[in-house]
Amino acid sequence: MARYASSINKLISNLAGLPGIGTKTAQRLAFYILNMEKDKALDLAQAIMDAKEKIRLCEVCCNLTDQDVCEICLDEERDRSVICVVESPSDVIAMEKTREYRGLYHVLHGAISPMEGITPEDIHLRDLLIRLQQHEEIKEIILANNATVEGEATANYIAKLVKPSGIVCSRLASGIPFGSNLEYTDEVTLGRAIEGRIIL
Amino acid sequence: MARYASSINKLISNLAGLPGIGTKTAQRLAFYILNMEKDKALDLAQAIMDAKEKIRLCEVCCNLTDQDVCEICLDEERDRSVICVVESPSDVIAMEKTREYRGLYHVLHGAISPMEGITPEDIHLRDLLIRLQQHEEIKEIILANNATVEGEATANYIAKLVKPSGIVCSRLASGIPFGSNLEYTDEVTLGRAIEGRIIL
Repeated sequence: MARYASSINKLISNLAGLPGIGTKTAQRLAFYILNMEKDKALDLAQAIMDAKEKIRLCEVCCNLTDQDVCEICLDEERDRSVICVVESPSDVIAMEKTREYRGLYHVLHGAISPMEGITPEDIHLRDLLIRLQQHEEIKEIILANNATVEGEATANYIAKLVKPSGIVCSRLASGIPFGSNLEYTDEVTLGRAIEGRIIL
Repeated sequence: MARYASSINKLISNLAGLPGIGTKTAQRLAFYILNMEKDKALDLAQAIMDAKEKIRLCEVCCNLTDQDVCEICLDEERDRSVICVVESPSDVIAMEKTREYRGLYHVLHGAISPMEGITPEDIHLRDLLIRLQQHEEIKEIILANNATVEGEATANYIAKLVKPSGIVCSRLASGIPFGSNLEYTDEVTLGRAIEGRIIL
């Protein structure tokens, strides 16, 4: 019996299609948008269209960019001998936020997962291998794939392919997150923390 | 140090302007939108623009509509002798979902709140009073303002203005929500439930 005008219904169902947004939240957002200043709402719509229109993959590292080659790849000050391999563009942001890493990136856009039918051909792995062949200055790749079953499998798979060429393959340390108690750390993490312990 | 392409940044900041959406969620939504099929993303943008373009207030009841007069006001089968006064368009939906009410509505778009500087002039109250004068068939108004301090004050204010004209002013019952335990009901609610008890 709930009757919205059809354009409200359309807005709600479009919003409800976004991840983590149910019908209730979509309703709330729709009414908020309807109450917004018109300019701001049109800005939002425009931002969606612009992003879809302009954003593409960097020709070098496959990160999202609005240029042919992304800013990080163009940055002359970055260390061109190291490539950090990540699963998604948001991982690049996470790495950048640490301010610890000054090398380049390669974004795979996924992980190999036979269960979900994702093969090495489905992620941007071939691009990485070609890049490693073409750029002799690359001395190391840091496999920063997620610490999941798929991420680990992908990292191992890449390491197996790359190692014969003499490029160093490293993997991010696995262990207890900063600020955690031993008591609440799961046994796999704790096992890895013991295995990877550092001599002080 | 986190560098997104500027159109991604713009999309994230626009999304983060919505209520209940922080930077992290805005990032997640933005990346989801970037991965969406282009048609779907453009549908979303279009839905925002259409809603802003087409939706306006019903000339009779001030509910949101894409016509001059909303569907509820046009519906010949509804009881034109009762008007339910609510604070917002989403309250209309909530009332409609009960399937208990077959009268008309009036949407105030707010509540009187001296603390926030919202006066009777700032809500659609004058429209209601004019409507009551013009339509002699109206016998009762149900004040379904929220059960908040502002909502109660607004309901009492309206009742004071309307009562002299002989129109019945009623208020939704206040009490224990269905499915609740007495133990977890706050004392104000419980007090009202006692006050408003019904003889069986």
